[in-house]
Amino acid sequence: MIQDMKSDICLIKKRHKTREIRIKDLTIGGSNIIRIQSMCNIKTAYFKKVLNQIKKLENAGCEIVRVSVKDDDDINGLKKIIKSAELPVVADIHFDYKLALKSVEAGVSKLRINPGNITDKWKIKEIVSAAKNNDVPIRIGVNLGSLEKSLLQKLEAGKISVENAMLESALSETAYLEELDFKNIVVSLKTSDVLSTVKSYMLFSKKRNYPLHIGITETGTLRCGLIKSSIGLSQILSYGLGDTIRVSLSADPVEEVYAAYKILGALNLRKDTPDLIACPTCGRTEINLIKIAGEVEKILFNVRKPIKVAVMGCAVNGPGEARDADIGITGGKGVGLLFKKGKIVKKVKESEILGVLKKELDAMIK
Amino acid sequence: MIQDMKSDICLIKKRHKTREIRIKDLTIGGSNIIRIQSMCNIKTAYFKKVLNQIKKLENAGCEIVRVSVKDDDDINGLKKIIKSAELPVVADIHFDYKLALKSVEAGVSKLRINPGNITDKWKIKEIVSAAKNNDVPIRIGVNLGSLEKSLLQKLEAGKISVENAMLESALSETAYLEELDFKNIVVSLKTSDVLSTVKSYMLFSKKRNYPLHIGITETGTLRCGLIKSSIGLSQILSYGLGDTIRVSLSADPVEEVYAAYKILGALNLRKDTPDLIACPTCGRTEINLIKIAGEVEKILFNVRKPIKVAVMGCAVNGPGEARDADIGITGGKGVGLLFKKGKIVKKVKESEILGVLKKELDAMIK
Repeated sequence: MIQDMKSDICLIKKRHKTREIRIKDLTIGGSNIIRIQSMCNIKTAYFKKVLNQIKKLENAGCEIVRVSVKDDDDINGLKKIIKSAELPVVADIHFDYKLALKSVEAGVSKLRINPGNITDKWKIKEIVSAAKNNDVPIRIGVNLGSLEKSLLQKLEAGKISVENAMLESALSETAYLEELDFKNIVVSLKTSDVLSTVKSYMLFSKKRNYPLHIGITETGTLRCGLIKSSIGLSQILSYGLGDTIRVSLSADPVEEVYAAYKILGALNLRKDTPDLIACPTCGRTEINLIKIAGEVEKILFNVRKPIKVAVMGCAVNGPGEARDADIGITGGKGVGLLFKKGKIVKKVKESEILGVLKKELDAMIK
Repeated sequence: MIQDMKSDICLIKKRHKTREIRIKDLTIGGSNIIRIQSMCNIKTAYFKKVLNQIKKLENAGCEIVRVSVKDDDDINGLKKIIKSAELPVVADIHFDYKLALKSVEAGVSKLRINPGNITDKWKIKEIVSAAKNNDVPIRIGVNLGSLEKSLLQKLEAGKISVENAMLESALSETAYLEELDFKNIVVSLKTSDVLSTVKSYMLFSKKRNYPLHIGITETGTLRCGLIKSSIGLSQILSYGLGDTIRVSLSADPVEEVYAAYKILGALNLRKDTPDLIACPTCGRTEINLIKIAGEVEKILFNVRKPIKVAVMGCAVNGPGEARDADIGITGGKGVGLLFKKGKIVKKVKESEILGVLKKELDAMIK
């Protein structure tokens, strides 16, 4: 009841209307759900390991997966991966346009090219021609770290702002693809600076309506990365922008998928993720709440239902404070309590409370 | 150079003008820097352990520390803590108004009371009288989980929105304190729902100009908590709100301080924190980047300087991609490179690169 109440303040702007683009069986853009993607961090040539990682990502809820294609060994791996993977596979291409052509031939679902890394127009033209003939969309993935040389020089001379340099790179590449009558385009404009990235997406969205792949790049470790990505992506999403999301972390890619769900969930932009409520511990806490909350998080890791679960440190106030949780546990001095919607439904030994919760959750999920 | 460039888009609204409030040697509110606080999670009676935790928090950059006061044993602990701690100590009071009086007597720097937990007006009056006589500010800490019964009933009957219930609780308590001619007030309005919390702060700031203690409560484990806190706090801060910040996590309180710096740093609201850039690993990475980035994060954990440090996976592109970093490392196949502002300055064995970085950082910090 409580969480459905609304005031008239609107924190999330109306979604920016973008074109629809097909990636294998998925459609992104328009009013379609914001899709979650990640990237494998194993060399694509090692296709068995990569497929194993893709399976894990899929279990975590990943919907599009990207692999880097760096040489012909990777192309061989890519072929095998595309044959076996359920998820749409995106090939990440830098420098060598021939690898893009070979990736299309291998049956890839989408290409990512970096405008700063393939600059000869005739090479782009060949890529576009292959993509067009095979109905493969292209992401123009602008990255501050690898802008075209001319833009970098302007940047370093202080003649252009970061966000305008990003915009210019994205616009000149889209303009060239449009010249070639190709509009099967997705665009990203990533920097490692949170605010510059938000501004770059805002500027581009005023100029074109291609679907946006959103992300903050090079955000660092799990901690730093979660913080910068959560801030930047929530800002971008609040402006109504974003059709597919990647949280870039220097961590296991599964963490990227988990974080993406949590970010979209906190903004009510996806409902298929549980919400875990846990009180910050304080001097009144009498159980090992940090450990128990961690265990509950593990149980919920791959769950794709909108269940609200609470872990409270205080048996007296806990159930009441978490009264809008579908299910919750609390404990203290040897006793574990299971509660639903604020009402205590079971009292067990503290040591048994996690097992009881798991059983109840399994039943709720089925 | 790059990071100083600006466009005319303004993502952070002008700061809401609040009253200035003194907490020991600190002034919060007005145009003062946003102060970072945390809360001990050890029973206050165990003062030696608590003092040890406070020292750790202080080393991490914590500027105000709160402890829970639940009984007379805690009052005894509190007295000893106040005597030894350098940081301003805030007493967190629930239910028993006498503990507030005793905390003031013990010399506490600030009180936190929860309007839903002490409802008799004469008790509040006694607390206010003690606070006034000793020049101790009071935080009115509204929490959705423990609203006044009448408001909870309206909420559950669907007659009021969460944010308006929060607002009503905060306003009725501030109005009563104002009636008692007491304005030495800080206010917080915390819920575990990100968007409701943002709205609550927005609504309150339109009605009163007391300094705001901001936070999202019961956000869960480190991962979930960092995500929800980063989203909610960055939204609140973007609206120009917030004079002191607490990131609530079900984790070591030191993590709360670290996260607060990172959030304020990403929004350029505090400069005294390093920025760690690390590329997300990909199939092209040839070093154990996740591990190395983690080590660098440890080195930087307590550093309070605005240094930009990069850890890049790719020796060819890394230094260029992280050209706006003050210092960075990259490596691959046995070689470690140290670079500054995009230029390689040293080539060492890969195994030595962390040691070299640490030495350079130590020199930069001094």
